[in-house]
Amino acid sequence: MINKLIANIKKTGAPVVAGLDPMMKFIPEHIQKKAFAEYGESLEGAAAAVWWFNKEIVDNIYDIIPAVKPQIAMYEQFGIPGLMVYRETIEYCKKKGLVVIGDIKRGDIGSTSEAYAVGHLGKVKIGSQSFYGFDEDFATVNPYLGSDGVKPFIKVCQEENKGIFVLVKTSNPSSGEFQDRLLGTEDRPLYEIVGEYVAEWGKEHMGDSYSYVGAVVGATYPEMGKVLRRIMPKTYILVPGYGAQGGKGKDLVHFFNEDGLGAIVNSSRGIIAAYQQEQYASFGPENFGQAARAAVEDMIKDISQALESR
Amino acid sequence: MINKLIANIKKTGAPVVAGLDPMMKFIPEHIQKKAFAEYGESLEGAAAAVWWFNKEIVDNIYDIIPAVKPQIAMYEQFGIPGLMVYRETIEYCKKKGLVVIGDIKRGDIGSTSEAYAVGHLGKVKIGSQSFYGFDEDFATVNPYLGSDGVKPFIKVCQEENKGIFVLVKTSNPSSGEFQDRLLGTEDRPLYEIVGEYVAEWGKEHMGDSYSYVGAVVGATYPEMGKVLRRIMPKTYILVPGYGAQGGKGKDLVHFFNEDGLGAIVNSSRGIIAAYQQEQYASFGPENFGQAARAAVEDMIKDISQALESR
Repeated sequence: MINKLIANIKKTGAPVVAGLDPMMKFIPEHIQKKAFAEYGESLEGAAAAVWWFNKEIVDNIYDIIPAVKPQIAMYEQFGIPGLMVYRETIEYCKKKGLVVIGDIKRGDIGSTSEAYAVGHLGKVKIGSQSFYGFDEDFATVNPYLGSDGVKPFIKVCQEENKGIFVLVKTSNPSSGEFQDRLLGTEDRPLYEIVGEYVAEWGKEHMGDSYSYVGAVVGATYPEMGKVLRRIMPKTYILVPGYGAQGGKGKDLVHFFNEDGLGAIVNSSRGIIAAYQQEQYASFGPENFGQAARAAVEDMIKDISQALESR
Repeated sequence: MINKLIANIKKTGAPVVAGLDPMMKFIPEHIQKKAFAEYGESLEGAAAAVWWFNKEIVDNIYDIIPAVKPQIAMYEQFGIPGLMVYRETIEYCKKKGLVVIGDIKRGDIGSTSEAYAVGHLGKVKIGSQSFYGFDEDFATVNPYLGSDGVKPFIKVCQEENKGIFVLVKTSNPSSGEFQDRLLGTEDRPLYEIVGEYVAEWGKEHMGDSYSYVGAVVGATYPEMGKVLRRIMPKTYILVPGYGAQGGKGKDLVHFFNEDGLGAIVNSSRGIIAAYQQEQYASFGPENFGQAARAAVEDMIKDISQALESR
């Protein structure tokens, strides 16, 4: 699947992933109204609004991006109907040729991580049959529990030709509280050690040129990205924090290798709620899909220019 | 909710939580057969088997324990039907007077953690209405992303009178890879620092005698439990790793305060799959619920004796 992701990136010339994080405040009123009229102000109504919103966004951008990253929390908050739309979104995006990165940040121990892995990336065995659960192409994984928590995911990835992105250095302001702690014996921060583990896990699990064990490193910490790029040369880095969180194209160049590959940059509200920004306000809420497309085009340009002029 | 948990513990005299982690291999064949006959070898069939299994377990032990801890991964692996049974299990256990700790190990940043928090502990707003999603009493939370990831949960707990248990030192063999790293400036392991944060978060969020911001510390590391007990005097500690993972009653005494409170010990397969152990094999698979009850009674005895003789 890492090969397909890279092929998609090359085809579109866009190391960009659109974060499908459909918070209600991003969904235009006309869609909410229609959904509530049909299903009531209910979990089902919210789920319908999310689905229509997602579909319109995807229909407007699927041909110019390689991948999407739905954030499961934004669906899980609407309970079962929300999770049904999460699954529907994954299926729809895959049909459109997109690689789907499930931003699930799961992580547990042994058999429990295995259950998450089969539920999201693999197949669960039931009697003599087996079934896909959510069937994302990639999933994000939290490393706090150590190898026990990560290896069951890697095992399923190997069987199913899928991949993971392990949280190394996250984009949020307080990510340093634990991740940046300097370790005594080595005088290096924890996130570097996690990065080394990711590189090590990845060595035995290679696609053609990059590993299918990837890493998450926030755009908001470009200097740390530089160091981590060196520590994990064959690791694909998923970079959140572009746009709304403050990261810009020029902050991103160090996340890429000389081959122009090695990183894929996520933007969520910057794309899906573009119509709410001054820059794209002229599209109007009715044309939020076209506003999203314009935002994606600008983002691709921003990153390409930064990469060319480095 | 921490007050209710403590009241339940006092009432039953049992600082014990039963982990409802219904892996298929724990479910007796007669239940699987019946479920597959009715719903086919399908996600629905598996979900039915899990539900019948859970119900029988709960019916046999609800009057002698204060709380249950369903592990969501074991339901999530069966997709939507699995998650419907997760919700059904929570509802049923609450009706039986049990406190429900959702072992969800979620953790993300800002608005995303907030979405998890409202989806699991609080209410999500939809138009002019609001709805509970999974509605657990407590949830486990992963701290790798720092305060940004934890505080949205605490906020919802405050509004809803609920609680969390933050992962501090997990019970698995590789938990030391990152959690035990010694930090340079202080020559102390990371998990102690996380413990200090938990104690700090808890100070402003107190029930009558303990905070509703709790911690997870594995039974498999009793010496670390001793230190963490001191660092977090007002924190309730959820202790996994008893029984199947190797922890015994005498390993647990340091997790408790002098008042006999402050810790609640989880056992999962040791209870729900007791009938598969030599010690309880005489019950037979048909009476797996009674075997679970016997295992709970023995566990309560083991812990009480250890606490009395300390």
